[in-house]
Amino acid sequence: MFEKTNRPLILVCNDDGIHAPGIRALVEAVAPLGELVIVAPDSPQSGMGHAVTIGSPLRINKKIGLFEGHEAYETSGTPVDCVKLAVDKILHRKPDLLVSGINHGSNSSINVIYSGTMSAAVEGGIEGIPSVGFSLCDFAYEADFGLAAQVARQVAEQLLQNGLPFGTLLNVNIPKIDPKDYKGLKVCRQASSKWKENFDERIDPHGKKYYWMTGEFQVLEKATDTDEWALSNGYASLVPVQFDLTAHHAIPYLNSWTL
Amino acid sequence: MFEKTNRPLILVCNDDGIHAPGIRALVEAVAPLGELVIVAPDSPQSGMGHAVTIGSPLRINKKIGLFEGHEAYETSGTPVDCVKLAVDKILHRKPDLLVSGINHGSNSSINVIYSGTMSAAVEGGIEGIPSVGFSLCDFAYEADFGLAAQVARQVAEQLLQNGLPFGTLLNVNIPKIDPKDYKGLKVCRQASSKWKENFDERIDPHGKKYYWMTGEFQVLEKATDTDEWALSNGYASLVPVQFDLTAHHAIPYLNSWTL
Repeated sequence: MFEKTNRPLILVCNDDGIHAPGIRALVEAVAPLGELVIVAPDSPQSGMGHAVTIGSPLRINKKIGLFEGHEAYETSGTPVDCVKLAVDKILHRKPDLLVSGINHGSNSSINVIYSGTMSAAVEGGIEGIPSVGFSLCDFAYEADFGLAAQVARQVAEQLLQNGLPFGTLLNVNIPKIDPKDYKGLKVCRQASSKWKENFDERIDPHGKKYYWMTGEFQVLEKATDTDEWALSNGYASLVPVQFDLTAHHAIPYLNSWTL
Repeated sequence: MFEKTNRPLILVCNDDGIHAPGIRALVEAVAPLGELVIVAPDSPQSGMGHAVTIGSPLRINKKIGLFEGHEAYETSGTPVDCVKLAVDKILHRKPDLLVSGINHGSNSSINVIYSGTMSAAVEGGIEGIPSVGFSLCDFAYEADFGLAAQVARQVAEQLLQNGLPFGTLLNVNIPKIDPKDYKGLKVCRQASSKWKENFDERIDPHGKKYYWMTGEFQVLEKATDTDEWALSNGYASLVPVQFDLTAHHAIPYLNSWTL
């Protein structure tokens, strides 16, 4: 499969599927930086979180001519499966960089938890690969990825050059904004936020109820050092993410319990 | 649907499905503490991580007589979907406690990321519900849930009584151990660990390759304050978990980048 060269090896993933315009924009953005291999789901996988496929087997299909000049593979798995398959079965080594996206839609604040795009980047982080997920705050299929691609190129360059502290990866979101109003990239923390569910209840032709998930996104704070603030004020947000989920500050409190 | 009473309202979820022995053990363990409503997937959902169902609608079916004396519902969704459906469409309010499990198999250290059991608890935490996931380090369908049920009862009682700091929830793992060798519950942090992939490659009857995910679990540290250490040394582990994934310690470093 992949031949080793001296240029950095860059793994490109996403969750919108290998045919999404966002991954094409990302491929074009980072192509000058190294040797690319694209490994992405064969169908959209938004909202898959950190799902892995245990109960059924997985397929890998090489895609000829889909990305001119780059090896590309689609898999039948989730974004996390794609990263695992890429490392173990396609690349046979850790890539030097993992870029995921560009997602069609925001993955800022609490959305990092639900996002397949970010889970691919988290899995890269767990594997010890310098990893980043990119998301454009525009769900449209025909979204303009121009500014997002420019930001992706800039962050990928820095990441290849500088690396990241152990156990961390990056979540980058780009606002839907006229490029002339863009103020730059801001290092942020994840805003406190949640989705307030509001399932849309319907009746099927057989008289039985079914439910579509809908919801209202709620930002629960107004501080100016968060990703939500940055995105609402003309910045792209860059949040360092960790996969040690321990709430270290709660340990002394729990030690006061009668256990 | 659910009638309000003065007893605490306890939502019971899992990822192994509503028919798994583990959820039955959990229901029996916490039944004395309040009014229970069980909302769980209609089929096993292990490894679903924090997946949500966006592209297809969801179903809820009331289960009559499955858990004697308790209302129970199965849904066609993921563990996270179950929590969202429970709050919005079944309970019509936040429960006083969410318990998830008891999982058949460990969710210690990095497994918290892949686990549907823990994702239900994380979703509860995001909703502001005191939440905990329980897992027994034994994958067997016929596992003995005796000790795990005793630990679950003890933790659920403390949680109802004391609550948790904002933005946190609990990950409790119980060792596969003779109860006479059990040393108690230990408050821990998540151990540094990873799965080393090793996909099992096979050929289907049509001559095409397919892959089963397998792997080797690797603990990357030997410190004595981790969940892996506790579980290997006769303790049940209790790790406080947070869903603010920001790697706060990496922010000053990233501010030194040329962005």
